[in-house]
Amino acid sequence: MQIIKALPLTKEAFAPFGDVIEISTAEKSHFINRGTTERFHNLTSAVAFGEDGHVIISMARAQPFAPPIFLTKMERHPLGSQAFIPVSPTRFLITTAPDENGKPGTPLAFLAAPGQGINYFRNTWHGVLTVLESVSDFLIIDREGEGKNLEEHQFTQAYQIEI
Amino acid sequence: MQIIKALPLTKEAFAPFGDVIEISTAEKSHFINRGTTERFHNLTSAVAFGEDGHVIISMARAQPFAPPIFLTKMERHPLGSQAFIPVSPTRFLITTAPDENGKPGTPLAFLAAPGQGINYFRNTWHGVLTVLESVSDFLIIDREGEGKNLEEHQFTQAYQIEI
Repeated sequence: MQIIKALPLTKEAFAPFGDVIEISTAEKSHFINRGTTERFHNLTSAVAFGEDGHVIISMARAQPFAPPIFLTKMERHPLGSQAFIPVSPTRFLITTAPDENGKPGTPLAFLAAPGQGINYFRNTWHGVLTVLESVSDFLIIDREGEGKNLEEHQFTQAYQIEI
Repeated sequence: MQIIKALPLTKEAFAPFGDVIEISTAEKSHFINRGTTERFHNLTSAVAFGEDGHVIISMARAQPFAPPIFLTKMERHPLGSQAFIPVSPTRFLITTAPDENGKPGTPLAFLAAPGQGINYFRNTWHGVLTVLESVSDFLIIDREGEGKNLEEHQFTQAYQIEI
């Protein structure tokens, strides 16, 4: 079985697939609320939802996966971006892949550190939300509206993700 | 000085001013990711940003306020809604007011419990982001775009908020 080693989640490595949402010294910020709050402004490059859709805010409660972790399936959303941000500091596993002729190519895996969230670009292949340690709650910012916003791909052979 | 007593944050009490974003048994949910994740779908009634704006995702790091807490000023955003969701479980204080002839009327205060976030409706008077215990990070979902999206009001007399 092919093994995919999870990489640390960084803006640079994740750039082809989406945004990393985090507070870091690399971000521009300004102070609001008379200096009591530092705002890290506009951390995503594309909150996309198309002409026939609108942005919605949802939450999700994810059950942890126990290793070994297998990747058998991916999906993508042709009409909208999709952000996942934990509402408690937690690690989580991200799987994504470049598109190759309408199918996911060789997958990549990233391990988000506590304090990091992500925003998948529109039409980007990704695996399911995968938390590792304990039940974790996430905020989801994605699209609702007309049109078919889901494509799925089943791999003929599973990949194993190594954390 | 007039004292405003903070109320527990509930959907019902906060309904005139915005949405409470939380996972609760009162929310409709469905399972995704082959049953490993429970999605609480579309928790806000209005992510509003107008024709000349778009939704952006930002973060903020808020310094805690030490009691006594005074309310001297409010603001509102005529063109867009604004959501604040802590990314660590924390209590925070919300101040808001009904509009009375273009000015805030008598303020109300709500205390959000750990696990709760809020979405202020478009054009709703509110005070600054107020955390109580420690430095806390928030996700902000609001509007960027053309037009004047800020109105401010200075009270002639400060209110004191009682937690």
